[in-house]
Amino acid sequence: MANVTSRQNPLYKRIRRAIDEHADEIVIEGPKAVDDAIARGWKAIHVLHRDVDLSPALFDSLAETKTPQSVIGLFARPSFADLFSDRDRIVVALDAVQDPGNVGTIVRLAAAFDATGVVLLPGSADAYGPKAIRASVGAILTVPVVSMSREELLARDWPLFVADGSGKAIDPPSRGAVIVFGNEGGGVSHEIAECATKIAIPMTKKVESLNVAASAAILLARSYALRSWGRTPSSARAAKQR
Amino acid sequence: MANVTSRQNPLYKRIRRAIDEHADEIVIEGPKAVDDAIARGWKAIHVLHRDVDLSPALFDSLAETKTPQSVIGLFARPSFADLFSDRDRIVVALDAVQDPGNVGTIVRLAAAFDATGVVLLPGSADAYGPKAIRASVGAILTVPVVSMSREELLARDWPLFVADGSGKAIDPPSRGAVIVFGNEGGGVSHEIAECATKIAIPMTKKVESLNVAASAAILLARSYALRSWGRTPSSARAAKQR
Repeated sequence: MANVTSRQNPLYKRIRRAIDEHADEIVIEGPKAVDDAIARGWKAIHVLHRDVDLSPALFDSLAETKTPQSVIGLFARPSFADLFSDRDRIVVALDAVQDPGNVGTIVRLAAAFDATGVVLLPGSADAYGPKAIRASVGAILTVPVVSMSREELLARDWPLFVADGSGKAIDPPSRGAVIVFGNEGGGVSHEIAECATKIAIPMTKKVESLNVAASAAILLARSYALRSWGRTPSSARAAKQR
Repeated sequence: MANVTSRQNPLYKRIRRAIDEHADEIVIEGPKAVDDAIARGWKAIHVLHRDVDLSPALFDSLAETKTPQSVIGLFARPSFADLFSDRDRIVVALDAVQDPGNVGTIVRLAAAFDATGVVLLPGSADAYGPKAIRASVGAILTVPVVSMSREELLARDWPLFVADGSGKAIDPPSRGAVIVFGNEGGGVSHEIAECATKIAIPMTKKVESLNVAASAAILLARSYALRSWGRTPSSARAAKQR
């Protein structure tokens, strides 16, 4: 019989709280994700197996996947260096990006294109939820993700850029700036929009807009390409000629 | 009472066949998508309302959405000019892209970045299914989508390009070429791979790969930017300097 069978059990309550709050502790689900987190140096507080450590009923009330092999891990939230200490890279911010698949996809893009990290502004989906972890294909374990209020972000006083068809068709910044991606329906919030430079991605009039993950792919890839040019002497020259 | 209540009804069978085969007739679902198709000049053969034209049970056996306001339209498949007649643009091909959301997203990108059209190779998801239409945000109604075998595509003898991390970090083609995107897990098929130039998208080693929709966004946006430069005298000069 499983060790823990009651919802009053302190460990059960602690896991529940970690899932709901993602404060100092984070729950990661599934054998592969838990193994990956440990392999990447995340500190496991407890690894719990269904029907061994937790009764099936309790386990299923915590986990999204309910297979017999399921496992959940309770981890200490990694502490990240200040995202704004590295002026040679860019920071990605998500302004109420609601879909966990989009959040995970953009975290993966942030890793691919060497952003310092991802700022989650209020209203964004949980980056550590199972759907976002899956969409990030493990990148969530390597990219610093930090929750912040809009006021805190603005107080950093870094240049902000947003993708917006009404802006100019300029290259995205390659360093020392924040690229903000907004809500799937409404775009970025008013507070962010009025402080940000708008970048239009050149496209036809056959579509009204791109989805947020596509915009992120295009701008972050371009930002990284420009940044990489700057590091290679011959390419740097070519970049300057443009 | 609804007009059609039997699965033996010829109209019911015809709609069923159109959903299964997408040959000469195509079924589009939902009031907005049906209205959009008509507005864009698609020829409606029948527009059928749930509980008016078709009994709820029959309607629900055909439609993915089962709300009382639901509607499905039977349309004549639009006939498209040959995608390979325009050497000034590019053609997108999907080589067993399985997820309908990815197919719809790439169709939307093809519209945004002015590809002549999209070739669906065997094993790709249905571009006219409800999920793909939704992901395309209506772009499916404006972009020619043509099913073709790999042999037929190769027989066109156009240069083929694929995104592949083992290739060189070169710019994508801007005209007179096919950019092929492959299966989510396995990439492009062997037949296509051995005839194609591999393009690596510059990225860090922190991720193994990008998802297919992100690769498509990056390459198609870049191809369009290069094509647009060629059309503007001053920018063309800048482009040549690179």
